[in-house]
Amino acid sequence: MSFFGRELRIATFGESHGKAVGVVIDGVPAGLELGEEDIRRELDRRMFCNIPVLNPRCEPEEFEILSGVKDGRTQGTPIAIVLWNRRVISSYYDELWLKPRPGHADLAYYLKYGKNYDHRGGGRASGRTTAALVAAGAVAKKLLSTIGVEVVGHIVELGGVAISKDYTIDDVKASWSRQLPVVDEGALQKMLSVIVEVVKEGDSIGGAAEVWAVGVPPGLGEPVFDKIKADLAKAALSIPSAVAFEMGMGIRLSRMKGSEANDPIIVKGNRVGLATNKIGGVLGGISVGEPIWFRTYFKPTPSVRKPQQTVDLSTMSQTELAFKGRYDVTTVPKALVALEAMTALVLADHALRAGLIRRDKPLGNSI
Amino acid sequence: MSFFGRELRIATFGESHGKAVGVVIDGVPAGLELGEEDIRRELDRRMFCNIPVLNPRCEPEEFEILSGVKDGRTQGTPIAIVLWNRRVISSYYDELWLKPRPGHADLAYYLKYGKNYDHRGGGRASGRTTAALVAAGAVAKKLLSTIGVEVVGHIVELGGVAISKDYTIDDVKASWSRQLPVVDEGALQKMLSVIVEVVKEGDSIGGAAEVWAVGVPPGLGEPVFDKIKADLAKAALSIPSAVAFEMGMGIRLSRMKGSEANDPIIVKGNRVGLATNKIGGVLGGISVGEPIWFRTYFKPTPSVRKPQQTVDLSTMSQTELAFKGRYDVTTVPKALVALEAMTALVLADHALRAGLIRRDKPLGNSI
Amino acid sequence: MSFFGRELRIATFGESHGKAVGVVIDGVPAGLELGEEDIRRELDRRMFCNIPVLNPRCEPEEFEILSGVKDGRTQGTPIAIVLWNRRVISSYYDELWLKPRPGHADLAYYLKYGKNYDHRGGGRASGRTTAALVAAGAVAKKLLSTIGVEVVGHIVELGGVAISKDYTIDDVKASWSRQLPVVDEGALQKMLSVIVEVVKEGDSIGGAAEVWAVGVPPGLGEPVFDKIKADLAKAALSIPSAVAFEMGMGIRLSRMKGSEANDPIIVKGNRVGLATNKIGGVLGGISVGEPIWFRTYFKPTPSVRKPQQTVDLSTMSQTELAFKGRYDVTTVPKALVALEAMTALVLADHALRAGLIRRDKPLGNSI
Amino acid sequence: MSFFGRELRIATFGESHGKAVGVVIDGVPAGLELGEEDIRRELDRRMFCNIPVLNPRCEPEEFEILSGVKDGRTQGTPIAIVLWNRRVISSYYDELWLKPRPGHADLAYYLKYGKNYDHRGGGRASGRTTAALVAAGAVAKKLLSTIGVEVVGHIVELGGVAISKDYTIDDVKASWSRQLPVVDEGALQKMLSVIVEVVKEGDSIGGAAEVWAVGVPPGLGEPVFDKIKADLAKAALSIPSAVAFEMGMGIRLSRMKGSEANDPIIVKGNRVGLATNKIGGVLGGISVGEPIWFRTYFKPTPSVRKPQQTVDLSTMSQTELAFKGRYDVTTVPKALVALEAMTALVLADHALRAGLIRRDKPLGNSI
Repeated sequence: MSFFGRELRIATFGESHGKAVGVVIDGVPAGLELGEEDIRRELDRRMFCNIPVLNPRCEPEEFEILSGVKDGRTQGTPIAIVLWNRRVISSYYDELWLKPRPGHADLAYYLKYGKNYDHRGGGRASGRTTAALVAAGAVAKKLLSTIGVEVVGHIVELGGVAISKDYTIDDVKASWSRQLPVVDEGALQKMLSVIVEVVKEGDSIGGAAEVWAVGVPPGLGEPVFDKIKADLAKAALSIPSAVAFEMGMGIRLSRMKGSEANDPIIVKGNRVGLATNKIGGVLGGISVGEPIWFRTYFKPTPSVRKPQQTVDLSTMSQTELAFKGRYDVTTVPKALVALEAMTALVLADHALRAGLIRRDKPLGNSI
Repeated sequence: MSFFGRELRIATFGESHGKAVGVVIDGVPAGLELGEEDIRRELDRRMFCNIPVLNPRCEPEEFEILSGVKDGRTQGTPIAIVLWNRRVISSYYDELWLKPRPGHADLAYYLKYGKNYDHRGGGRASGRTTAALVAAGAVAKKLLSTIGVEVVGHIVELGGVAISKDYTIDDVKASWSRQLPVVDEGALQKMLSVIVEVVKEGDSIGGAAEVWAVGVPPGLGEPVFDKIKADLAKAALSIPSAVAFEMGMGIRLSRMKGSEANDPIIVKGNRVGLATNKIGGVLGGISVGEPIWFRTYFKPTPSVRKPQQTVDLSTMSQTELAFKGRYDVTTVPKALVALEAMTALVLADHALRAGLIRRDKPLGNSI
Repeated sequence: MSFFGRELRIATFGESHGKAVGVVIDGVPAGLELGEEDIRRELDRRMFCNIPVLNPRCEPEEFEILSGVKDGRTQGTPIAIVLWNRRVISSYYDELWLKPRPGHADLAYYLKYGKNYDHRGGGRASGRTTAALVAAGAVAKKLLSTIGVEVVGHIVELGGVAISKDYTIDDVKASWSRQLPVVDEGALQKMLSVIVEVVKEGDSIGGAAEVWAVGVPPGLGEPVFDKIKADLAKAALSIPSAVAFEMGMGIRLSRMKGSEANDPIIVKGNRVGLATNKIGGVLGGISVGEPIWFRTYFKPTPSVRKPQQTVDLSTMSQTELAFKGRYDVTTVPKALVALEAMTALVLADHALRAGLIRRDKPLGNSI
Repeated sequence: MSFFGRELRIATFGESHGKAVGVVIDGVPAGLELGEEDIRRELDRRMFCNIPVLNPRCEPEEFEILSGVKDGRTQGTPIAIVLWNRRVISSYYDELWLKPRPGHADLAYYLKYGKNYDHRGGGRASGRTTAALVAAGAVAKKLLSTIGVEVVGHIVELGGVAISKDYTIDDVKASWSRQLPVVDEGALQKMLSVIVEVVKEGDSIGGAAEVWAVGVPPGLGEPVFDKIKADLAKAALSIPSAVAFEMGMGIRLSRMKGSEANDPIIVKGNRVGLATNKIGGVLGGISVGEPIWFRTYFKPTPSVRKPQQTVDLSTMSQTELAFKGRYDVTTVPKALVALEAMTALVLADHALRAGLIRRDKPLGNSI
C-alpha cells in the first residue's frame, strides 16, 4: 500500500499521467516553520537541469499545500501536498497497452490488476511518484533540523563508473554544486561520458547512491524489528528500481574477519564513540551518536529504445517492443533525492517514537 | 520493537541468559495441521551438529506450545511458543559489564538503556533470539505449504569463499544433507578449512545466504511501500549481523545496461512469465509467478578472542578486551535459517493480506 | 492522527476554512466500478436541503478524484479525493481567537498546538471534515456491495425526542425520503418543532443515530482486540461530538438477566442463526450472519448564541462569548451519514482482512 | 487479533483451559522499577475473595515474568508474563461441544473456526483471558505513575441497581476497601442481595463500571482517529461482555441543550481549565488537564443454569441447554479491573506517542 511510517506517517497517491501525484503527511508537531519554499527547494534538487538529457524541459513543479500549514507554521494536523501533473503526451503508450515492458512493473500490474491499471508513463510505478516522496521528505528534513540532524547524499556509482576518492561530509554537500552530486570530479566526467554514449545506444544505466545523516543522537531505533537499519532498508527498497541495500561498508564487512570489521570504541571528548564507522552508525539497530550512512543500488531504467522480447497479452503471442517515448537514461539522480527523503522520514519517525521530538506541545513550546 | 507483520503478526521476547525466549504468532487461520514436530524440525535445522565448533553441546531445544493449537490443529487464536533457556554460565560476562564489545550492540544498549540491560550472552541482541523467529517461521512455512509455496535457502559465501557453480532449486534442497547447506562441494571444503583456521586465530567470519521461495503465485505485494522486496529487506536486516540485502542479482544488475538487465517476457505454457529471473521474481514490488530469491550478507561475529580496543564506561577510560566465553565463529548458518523463517513470515503475511489465504473460515473450510 | 484502517486505509486532511478537505483511500482492489456519481450520491445525502436551517445555501460539493480510478474502474492504487472548500467568511471567528468556545476543541488545540492552529470554522475539528469521511465511505459502500453488504442508518433520538415505533430495515431505508431519516413520523414532527424552537433560543441539540449493516456474512472480526464491536466503537467515537456507543440493545442488555439478554440460537433454513438479535449481530467480536446494528449518541453542537463563560487566553482573564457566525443547531443528521461511512469502512476492512474480498486479482477476476 | 497499541504494545494469548494465558508488553522504556509484586497487586484486585460466589477457591495466580526485567528494573525490551492455568475440570464442557451457548462466543467461533476451537471454559473468549490484560495493565500503571497519572475505577451499576450518591475520586479509591468497589454503601448492599437472589435462580446479571484517570496532562490524543475517547472506546469494547461505552456524561449530554452541556472554561490558578467536567476530560479527542472519566456497560454472563434454546450443530436440530459447570453470576467486578488496565495501556501509549515519556534514554536518565 502507499502508507508509510508510524508516528510520522505519509500516504502517497497518484499516477504518472493522471491529474496529480501527492502526499498526506501526518504526525508533524505544531509550530514548525514551513513554507512552500522549503518544498520547492527539495523538488528543485531532483531536477538536474544542468544535464538536459535527464530533464529536457526543466519546468518547475506546480504544487499546492492544501492543509496543515498556516501563517508559515505547521498546525499539528495533516499536511496535504498536491503536485499537479503537466499535460503529457500519452500517445506513445498506446502501443504498449497489453505489451508489458521487460523489467518494468507492467507485467506485475497486469497479473494483479488485470486491465484496470494506468500504464501510461509507468502509472503508479513511475519515477514521477517519487516527487511526492521528496515533498514529504522536505517536511521531514525541516523537522529533523530542529534536533540538529542533517541528511544529504551523493552518487557513488553510475553506469559501472565508481568514485575512487576519500571524502568528508563537507565534500558530499559541496558535490551538489556540480552537474551531478559526485565527490570525485574524474569519476563524474566518466559518468557523464557514459550517459552520452548510452543515450546514443538507446540504452540505460543504473548505479548506486549513498546517504549520510549527521547529527543523529544516540538511542534511536529499537531492538529486533524496528532497527534503524531495517527501516532504512525497507525505505530504500520502496524506491522504484532499487535492488540492493548496504548498511555502512556492508558487503565488504561480510568479507572481513571480526577483528577487522569491528569499529574500536573510544573516548571522544566527553562521550564514548567509534574510532572508525565501518558499520554505518548503527549497532544492534540503534544509533550510537555517529553519522548514519548506507548505500542503495538501482538497476538501469527498464524502458530502452533497443527492441526487447515481450508478449502481446491480448493474443498471448511473442512480440518485440522498442520504446519510442521520452525515457530516462538513468533514474539514479532522482532516486538519490528520494532516498534522502525516505531517510529523513525514517529518522524523524524514530525521533518522534523515541520522544526526542514531542507532540503534546508545540515545537519549542512556541505558545 | 519486537512486533512484526500485519495480518500474520509475531511478537517475540526474551534475553539470551534470561528464563526463556519465545514468540506469539497471531493471524494463522484455524484448521492448519500443526504439531510440536513441525516446530522441532525447523529448530533442528539451525543446530548444525555436524560441525562441533558451531554447536559443541548440540542439545535439542526445550520448548512448549502454550496456546492456539488443539488436537493437532490451529484454532485461529494466538500461538505462543516458549523456548526455555538452558542453565548457562554467565560468569564470563562479568568482566564485560560496562566494557562494551566492539561491533556488538552493547554500546548502543548502554546509550539507550543505561545500566538497565542484560549484557549476558548478548541479552536481547543475541543470536539466541533467532530461535524464536525460527519457531514462528515453522508455522509460516506450514501455512504457506497450503498454497504450494516452499521456502529454502543456502550459504553462498563464507569467510570470503564464494560458491562458483550453477545450481537448481533441487540442488539447494539437496545441500541440506551436507555439513553446511552449500551447493558447491569444493567451496564447502574451503569454507570448512577457513572455519578451522579462524577458530585457531580466535577470530570470526561473515558471509552471505540466499533464500528461494518457489510456488509463489502472482499478485502478492503492493505498490510503493508494501513491496515484497521492501518487506523482505526489512525482514532480512532485522536479523542480527545482517549488513546488506540484494534482491535477485541486485548489485550486478546495477552495473548492467537496461537491455541486459531486463528479463525478457515470454509465454510459458498457458501463462506469461520471465525467460530469465535476474530480478528475483518481483516486479514493481509484486510477485509475477516466478521464484522469489534474494541474498543477505552478514558481518563476522563481533565477539572474538583477539584483544580489541574499548572503553571502560565506569571510568570513561580506554581499555582492551579479549572475549573468553563461548563464541560463534560465524553466525551465517543460523542466520540463514532465521532468514528462511522471516521470508516465510513475509510471504504468508502477504498471502493473508491479499486474501489468497482466507481467515473468515477454517482452512479448507474444514468444518 | 488522521489515518484509519488496516487493509482498507484512509488518510484524511483539511481544515474547515483552508483550501480543501480530502482523503486518500488505499487497499481497494482493482476493477471496482466507481464514478464521481457514487461519491456525489453520498455527499448529497449529508446536505439535508429540505431543512434550510441545517443547510441554508445548499450548494453541492465541488470535488475531484485525483488518482486511482480510470475508465470508471478502480486501479488497485490509492484513490485521492479532494473536496474544495468554498469561499467562506472567516471574520466571525476573529473575536474567537484565543477565546476558546466552551464544549469545542478550541481549548484542547490551544493546549496542544499553542497558537499554531486554525480556529476558523472549527479548523481540523470541524464537522466539515466529515465530508471527507463520507467520500471514503462511498467507496467502501461500493466495495461492500460486491459481497452483498448494505449499510444504512437513521436518527433515533433528537433534542430529547425519541422514536417510539417498531421498524424494519425497509422502514429505515424508506425514512430517507422524509426531511430527516426518522422512521416514526410523529417523532419526526416533534423533532422538527424542537429544531425551530431551539434555533429561536440560539441554542443547540444533540441526539442519537443508529446504523444497520445487512448481508454481513459470518466470520468477520477477530477475538480480543479486533472485535467488530470494538472497531465500530472506535470508528463512532472518532466522529466529532460523539459521546457514547451502544452495540445492539447495549445498556438495556446490561440491565437484563442473562436468561433474558441471550439471543436464542435456532435453525434458520440451512443455516444456524439467532431468534432475536438484541446483541447487534456480533458475538465474541465476530459476525454471525445476522444484521449488525448499533447506536451512537452525539452531544449538542458546542457553538451557541447564548453567552457562555470562557477565558481570554491572551490576558488569562474570565470573559463571555456569544457565537455570532453561522452555526449548526444540531450535527446529528450529518454525523449519521459519517457514521454510515465509518461503518462501511470498518466492515470493508474486515472483509479484506478476512480474505472475503481478495486483492491479488482484480474484482471478479475481471482481466 | 490479539495485538493492541502503537508505541506501548501488547500481544496476548491463551485459552481458558489451555496451559496458560499471557501477554508480551513492548515499548516500556528501560529503568522502570518493576517487580512481581506490582503484577501480583493488580491480579489480586480482580479476585474479590470477600464474595465467595465470585471466586469460591480464591487461589492466587501462578505467574512468571519471562523476560524484559532484571534486578527489579525494566530493560527496554519486551516483558513476557505467563499466567499458568490451574488444573481445571473440563468435563462439564463435554456436553456443550457443538451446542453453542446462547449469548456466548461459541456460535461465532464455530462459524469462523469450524470445529477447531477450544470451547472449554469459554476458550479464547473466556473472562480468564482478562487476567493477562490486568498483568499488562499493572506495567502500564507503573509507567504512568512516573508522570503522575493514576487510574482507578468503581462499579456504578449492578443487576439494575445504580449508585445514587455524589462522590469524589477519594471516595472511589476508598471504595476498594469494601466487598465490591461501590461508593454508595446502600447501593452496595442492594447489589449484594441481588447477587444472592440471582445465584439462587441460576441466572446472571450485568452492570456498569466507571474509570477515572487523574493527573493526565493536557495535549494527549490526536485529532480525528487517535482521539483519546475513540481509543478508550475500542479498549473498553474489547473486554468480553462489554456492550456500551459512554464518555463523561455521555448519553445524558446528548439530551441536553448546548448551553447546558458545555463545560464553562475558567482560570484555575495559573492554568486554564473546566468549571465542570461533564465531557470527561477530553475535548476534540485531546486531554485538557482535567480528569478523564468514562463508563462501560456489560451484559450479564451468558452461561446460566436456566435452560436455553440452542442448536445441536452435529445434527442441525433444536435443543435445550442448561449450564452445569462453575459459572460467574456477573463479570462486572473482574471486567472493571480489566477496564482499568486497558485505560492505563491507552494513556501510557499516548504518553509515549506524544513524547511525554521518552524512550531514547532510560527513565529519569537513570544511567
